[in-house]
Amino acid sequence: MLHVKVETKTSFSLLISFPLERERQKQSLEMEESFPMTGGDGPYSYAKNSKLQKEAAVKAKSVIVEAIIEKLEVEDTTSIASTFRIADLGCSTGPNTFFSVNTIIEAVTHKYKTKGHTSLPDFQVHFNDHVSNDFNMLFNSLPPGRQYFVSGVPGSFHSRLFPKASLHFVCSAYALQWLSRVPQELSDINSPAYNRGRIFYSNAPNEVGKAYTAQYAMDMERFLAARSKEIVPGGLMALLIPGRPDGTLPAESSIGPIFQTLESCLVDMANEGIINKAKIDLFNLPMYCPSPEELRQLIQKNGSFSIARLESNTGAGRKQLCGAGECRSGLENIIVGHFGSDIVEELFERYTKKIAELPPLGTGETSGIGLCIILKRNH
Amino acid sequence: MLHVKVETKTSFSLLISFPLERERQKQSLEMEESFPMTGGDGPYSYAKNSKLQKEAAVKAKSVIVEAIIEKLEVEDTTSIASTFRIADLGCSTGPNTFFSVNTIIEAVTHKYKTKGHTSLPDFQVHFNDHVSNDFNMLFNSLPPGRQYFVSGVPGSFHSRLFPKASLHFVCSAYALQWLSRVPQELSDINSPAYNRGRIFYSNAPNEVGKAYTAQYAMDMERFLAARSKEIVPGGLMALLIPGRPDGTLPAESSIGPIFQTLESCLVDMANEGIINKAKIDLFNLPMYCPSPEELRQLIQKNGSFSIARLESNTGAGRKQLCGAGECRSGLENIIVGHFGSDIVEELFERYTKKIAELPPLGTGETSGIGLCIILKRNH
Repeated sequence: MLHVKVETKTSFSLLISFPLERERQKQSLEMEESFPMTGGDGPYSYAKNSKLQKEAAVKAKSVIVEAIIEKLEVEDTTSIASTFRIADLGCSTGPNTFFSVNTIIEAVTHKYKTKGHTSLPDFQVHFNDHVSNDFNMLFNSLPPGRQYFVSGVPGSFHSRLFPKASLHFVCSAYALQWLSRVPQELSDINSPAYNRGRIFYSNAPNEVGKAYTAQYAMDMERFLAARSKEIVPGGLMALLIPGRPDGTLPAESSIGPIFQTLESCLVDMANEGIINKAKIDLFNLPMYCPSPEELRQLIQKNGSFSIARLESNTGAGRKQLCGAGECRSGLENIIVGHFGSDIVEELFERYTKKIAELPPLGTGETSGIGLCIILKRNH
Repeated sequence: MLHVKVETKTSFSLLISFPLERERQKQSLEMEESFPMTGGDGPYSYAKNSKLQKEAAVKAKSVIVEAIIEKLEVEDTTSIASTFRIADLGCSTGPNTFFSVNTIIEAVTHKYKTKGHTSLPDFQVHFNDHVSNDFNMLFNSLPPGRQYFVSGVPGSFHSRLFPKASLHFVCSAYALQWLSRVPQELSDINSPAYNRGRIFYSNAPNEVGKAYTAQYAMDMERFLAARSKEIVPGGLMALLIPGRPDGTLPAESSIGPIFQTLESCLVDMANEGIINKAKIDLFNLPMYCPSPEELRQLIQKNGSFSIARLESNTGAGRKQLCGAGECRSGLENIIVGHFGSDIVEELFERYTKKIAELPPLGTGETSGIGLCIILKRNH
């Protein structure tokens, strides 16, 4: 059995590697929210702060290759419309998405050749992310000499994005931790899940964690329902998801301490009168780390996919917190959207100092795991 | 017979409604060039300066609808992968492309219903333009409630953009006047086509026009070859192209006087020492207006398409030149790329004054026509 070694030291920047619309004050709105990475190629851009995601993608490569070799059904390609369609959901601006896509295409090509096919299909790659993603940047950094046709698909992967039965391989790397929105109860002062003075579910009453769990379940149900329509029978889906071990509570997730550090910086600034305290009460990060068992149940409930592989790698603890650059790349938009742009410099200065002062943690001290899931669309 | 009334008063802004990469000094380079419209939604953006294109699209609507009703083959849709794929080539940033796409989808839906189909295919629309097009703007202005799946496809339509036999309907409105590059001879001081002191082929020796004609033929050959692979047998392609009547020389095109006005502003500025004269010698607009006969020959030479319709509307003369806003929207990038940004304000101020001073032209005085071509991919 092949283990994907996604160490938890990467968990923070992997978690935050995804999409916010500017106007996301109204956390209780019914509408879907999006949380874009910082675009462009500046010092806090995703493009310059996604090395750890790349590392994880490299580690997941062999799992994807093996899944394609073992599980992909390569039909007879006598049909004139022999296109192999790939989608990367939550691709951000590159360059990691190009690495994943190359992995998939190389493996599929290899499979076609070993099966004796004399001609290859045309490959078409759909790069998906929220409408607010920097697609201009993505398109400008497309690798020269690529052997596939490019398509950018804007929109939330919690909804339908593609025509029915049009995709042969779907991948999503460290994007599914993003919820479609913050659970509404968190901002409801009359709810037991009202999350006063906190920005996440770690260090919070169980009701808060439960609200996150319920939102995640709803989101994954929508995700799986949409994909079950879009993926051809026999098609594969490879998901890399930051998770936590079975038998742990949501609050025990290893990413808690990381967000608690950010949270404590915000609280300090509120205590000093720089930030309005009430604003912290209404700010919550729309992210969640599921356990393998939660995912297994959601996949079974959907019923359209069989689990070809579900592996987890318990990390070696929070050895290294990510730098302010990576943190800022992932969270700047969401923080600016809620608190305004004035506080950003100071917040990340404080964050940088605090994480430098934290003691290193021992092995196994936290509960972060990298989940690698290969699903096959049933016939 | 149905005529498309694309009046020549629209011809200038229609002509310039398309794609330039910043670094296009080197006109003699082998590589493909691109000439983007001004993006965003500022006062000189394409989005705010494309009313005349919209007008033309409205006028072409009935032709497209008729072509779909009469010529489109609606196969049996029992296959699970029943997606109807549309591509708009040279779509810019909207909103006109959304209008065209709606026209096509409505007509196809009507056709399916009248043929007794009980279910509709999924529609997927590929919005294509150069990599330098403002896709972020395009994606942010997608119409809410649209009944199709969206895909943005970056790249030159003079090359392959889509998998083989994957498209059912291709449209391109006032984009094919753009050449893939300026003919190389124009910048070669030893060539009879060296275009000293001019920026276009009007008012130029025949050799200049011939160089443009040859470049256009090469580009259209590549365009048709690419599309013949991408469009399914029986699929349709609707092209709106600014042209000139059969039997006229390229230099007789109605758009000549418009560019001559711009040219004379540049020459004035060179005479006053604001612009380097040698820079004008090396600057040429990569646009061309073909005659119906030229197009017919190129289509026949390709051999993959039958001409379902090729209509032209002789305009009523250059009644109205477009305003500086429209001119700037289309040409700002290309001019900044060659002359730098310092001269732009002054150039368009001079242009505005000059066109205001021009006498109105009488009916039939110029040779601008709108060509509407419906091609059907042979089986």
